[in-house]
Amino acid sequence: MQAESECYLCLLSQVFRVTGVLKPGKEQTMKMAREACGFLARTNFNRTPPEISEDLYKLLAKLSGHPDPYSKIKKESIEKAWQLYPEFKELVDSSSDSLRTALEISLAGNVIDFGANATQDWLKDKKFLNLGSLAIDDYKLLVEDLGRAKKIVFLGDNAGETVFDRLFIEKLPCQVVYAVREKPIINDATMEEAKLSGLAEVAELVSSGCQAPGTVIESCSPEFINILKEADLIMAKGQGNFECLEQVRGPFYFLLKAKCEVVARYLGVSPGGSIIMKSKNFTQRLSLQF
Amino acid sequence: MQAESECYLCLLSQVFRVTGVLKPGKEQTMKMAREACGFLARTNFNRTPPEISEDLYKLLAKLSGHPDPYSKIKKESIEKAWQLYPEFKELVDSSSDSLRTALEISLAGNVIDFGANATQDWLKDKKFLNLGSLAIDDYKLLVEDLGRAKKIVFLGDNAGETVFDRLFIEKLPCQVVYAVREKPIINDATMEEAKLSGLAEVAELVSSGCQAPGTVIESCSPEFINILKEADLIMAKGQGNFECLEQVRGPFYFLLKAKCEVVARYLGVSPGGSIIMKSKNFTQRLSLQF
Repeated sequence: MQAESECYLCLLSQVFRVTGVLKPGKEQTMKMAREACGFLARTNFNRTPPEISEDLYKLLAKLSGHPDPYSKIKKESIEKAWQLYPEFKELVDSSSDSLRTALEISLAGNVIDFGANATQDWLKDKKFLNLGSLAIDDYKLLVEDLGRAKKIVFLGDNAGETVFDRLFIEKLPCQVVYAVREKPIINDATMEEAKLSGLAEVAELVSSGCQAPGTVIESCSPEFINILKEADLIMAKGQGNFECLEQVRGPFYFLLKAKCEVVARYLGVSPGGSIIMKSKNFTQRLSLQF
Repeated sequence: MQAESECYLCLLSQVFRVTGVLKPGKEQTMKMAREACGFLARTNFNRTPPEISEDLYKLLAKLSGHPDPYSKIKKESIEKAWQLYPEFKELVDSSSDSLRTALEISLAGNVIDFGANATQDWLKDKKFLNLGSLAIDDYKLLVEDLGRAKKIVFLGDNAGETVFDRLFIEKLPCQVVYAVREKPIINDATMEEAKLSGLAEVAELVSSGCQAPGTVIESCSPEFINILKEADLIMAKGQGNFECLEQVRGPFYFLLKAKCEVVARYLGVSPGGSIIMKSKNFTQRLSLQF
């Protein structure tokens, strides 16, 4: 899906979230805001939000000299998630539908995000676990398709929820490849954060080759495209992956919280809604035309 | 006071408030947002927020073809305020300190604003009247200075609160000149709205000659500068007037709600705080150096 006019404001607000972390002083903050405005005025908006976002964060990295402003926050999120892991694992193991419970915990973890509508105090209480009823719930279809799948690719999203993704992957009976961003972008998981989240113990870890905060097919490495082509099922986590992949024909399921108005409207759900969705463009195998 | 980095985000958010009113369609909204970003990237930020704001709103007027997007909303605000007027007048007349009560109602009305932190449903209940204790309260000093004043200039702010300003002006024992913006800008009162607010019956109405959402001395008409020079006391209402005039030497009192972080921080108060403040640069007469 393409960016909407509201994305201008959201993207500019993210600049201030970065300067809030880096605290580069008044003059540099002014400069970053001004240059971000110039970038937003010039850049092609006939793209998905993660593609625009990638360019914006690269600009901010260049201006600030910090390629990974959320480095510390990513580690803290993972530590916090690990503190919850034993309790959540017990929840999963004692559930009458372990897979569903694990999936819901993984989905609830998608609240951790420093891009769209950042939730910095997601762990203040455990309310984030209460998803209520899902806005879109294709769980039954997913279970059917999982039953047929021998090779699953899981496209990760933010550092921290990665630990909860592990809980879900532990319950999958087949081979899982877990994909991360090639380089740091916002608080998204890279190889480093995936390892800290214990994902290497339950899945094969790979980089998508793409730095955007979403899987931009055109930017993925040829090796990763081959992995996607071999997948019987691709679980795409988070808004960014949804925005980049909802038009792509392939065995996609989307697992996300619709954090912003734009995505919620596109999906026809209320903002904040939790979603397990079989792709409208579902095909048994990835099918790329370019 | 000069604009801060946060003003970039606030100004861009105001573009969406305008498109929310005008509903110019998706493509035009994208264009207005994009051009506003370009403007923010180029414009001189070593100015007061109202000076930047004036240029931004002129750009939006040009792009949209609507020089007065808040025209209807201004009239509605005035109508709503008139509905409250009789009740508030009784409050004032039955008060042991009528002037103070009238001033507080005028100050409470400063919550009506479609620029900074817009409050569109200010009349949903009458909570807006409960100011609590003022964050800065120079009322006693004001009463002293009012006692000596023969000619008072009141610099108006938003349409709607103008009706409550009338309540206050009714209690002043001397000649009052009420100044409005030269042309429509955001929801600020122009001559038309001042007349609809019944201000012509209690004060001499003049235009400042300036279109900014604040009184920019350099943009005022020579006639208006002469009026200011003759004033024994100048009551400047709202953030915009404060931002433009707090450095100017003259008999200024500022009456405002500190609606945004930037102004609140500058004043050392909490956002939302209500303020009656004698200017730090108070002099008996306006003194301009340019």
